[in-house]
Amino acid sequence: MAEKENKLSIIAWSGDLDRIWPVLILSTTAVASGMQASVFFTFWGLFALVKPEVARKTGNNWMQKMLAIYNPGSVKKAKLSKMNFAGAGPKMLSKLAKDYKTPLPGELLEMARDMGVKIIPCQMTMDMLGLKREHLLDGLPEPVGAATALLEMKDAEIQLFV
Amino acid sequence: MAEKENKLSIIAWSGDLDRIWPVLILSTTAVASGMQASVFFTFWGLFALVKPEVARKTGNNWMQKMLAIYNPGSVKKAKLSKMNFAGAGPKMLSKLAKDYKTPLPGELLEMARDMGVKIIPCQMTMDMLGLKREHLLDGLPEPVGAATALLEMKDAEIQLFV
Amino acid sequence: MAEKENKLSIIAWSGDLDRIWPVLILSTTAVASGMQASVFFTFWGLFALVKPEVARKTGNNWMQKMLAIYNPGSVKKAKLSKMNFAGAGPKMLSKLAKDYKTPLPGELLEMARDMGVKIIPCQMTMDMLGLKREHLLDGLPEPVGAATALLEMKDAEIQLFV
Repeated sequence: MAEKENKLSIIAWSGDLDRIWPVLILSTTAVASGMQASVFFTFWGLFALVKPEVARKTGNNWMQKMLAIYNPGSVKKAKLSKMNFAGAGPKMLSKLAKDYKTPLPGELLEMARDMGVKIIPCQMTMDMLGLKREHLLDGLPEPVGAATALLEMKDAEIQLFV
Repeated sequence: MAEKENKLSIIAWSGDLDRIWPVLILSTTAVASGMQASVFFTFWGLFALVKPEVARKTGNNWMQKMLAIYNPGSVKKAKLSKMNFAGAGPKMLSKLAKDYKTPLPGELLEMARDMGVKIIPCQMTMDMLGLKREHLLDGLPEPVGAATALLEMKDAEIQLFV
Repeated sequence: MAEKENKLSIIAWSGDLDRIWPVLILSTTAVASGMQASVFFTFWGLFALVKPEVARKTGNNWMQKMLAIYNPGSVKKAKLSKMNFAGAGPKMLSKLAKDYKTPLPGELLEMARDMGVKIIPCQMTMDMLGLKREHLLDGLPEPVGAATALLEMKDAEIQLFV
């Protein structure tokens, strides 16, 4: 049995802007409060870690390329789960966030990495979506599988699937 | 490190009827089983705590007003995440629930408050969406931020993001 | 207070293929790593446990029958939460999964049961959706309510709502 640590561990499954946002707010707040935090980016969530410059350009075959077109990489291109209005929704929320001094997801991802939130890519998703290490943001730790992700969660006091 | 308590702690992120439902079933069942329960309503979920009489009428600027129109306040106006059919879906599920003696989300929210489920509004969401204390149901505790929400979760035996 | 066990406990609320997938990958991986695993299938998630041969044919009244038509039973008929493209999305992901030797959800559900993942149907959902024991896969344990589901989660080291 794992000894619980003062740690938050999140599985970030969704690539939606409105779900990535709480993932990053919770993990940066955790670290600012003296906790450790780790986030396992998997499935649609992994697209948030793609470099903006290769967005929509990843994939080894037509199926993977099509998935990349509909899920453009990087947090900055993420869509809302509803009220997306062809991009007007995210812009509106970003404007509101700025007016009310809430950091945006793009800034939060950088902050998270600077503050020491452990950002872990999912190996199985990379294989299925045709994403290579060089497509992902520089400086990320090694991609891992589900078994390692479970180990990462076991000793965390707070565990969430977002 | 937090000593775990006999407690359920939920982050209610979604405003969808079919997600608010399990939030309220789980938290009232927890209290009925002798556990404590607290629910942190954030993002779309916060609209569930808006008073019916100000539904669609909140917001300080056109963007916040538009969000309020698409996310009418109060549990009773919540939409399904799918099969909403312009309101026919929620009516159908409500009918089925009544026929099978399952309490409806609106009733469950009142029950939850009567039974002592701690219903906590998210301050950051209130700011971004232009929701004021007087827009929310009477008698709720003070809105809090993410750091307090994490503290609330740390000592809970069961923690969920819904 | 519950003594935590080396166990993963999941509430599988969603019937979407892309959410059932991680539920099954995580629970089978947990068992393969020496943990126990239990999954409580509730709400839309319960349709994943319907026998393929009665898919779209369950329900006692027109409302329940309509829900069954839009949520055809069995994992094999599950839709993606986005990019479903009338079934082309799931086929595409299945093809990618096969090419990259990722087991498909249908195979994973069988594996999960063979490996001893505890698959628990939600009684309240069965009532509301008009699903009977004979509609569900053979050999499942007794359906239970929310109180039992909470007990199942309390002693688990990892708890997720998917």
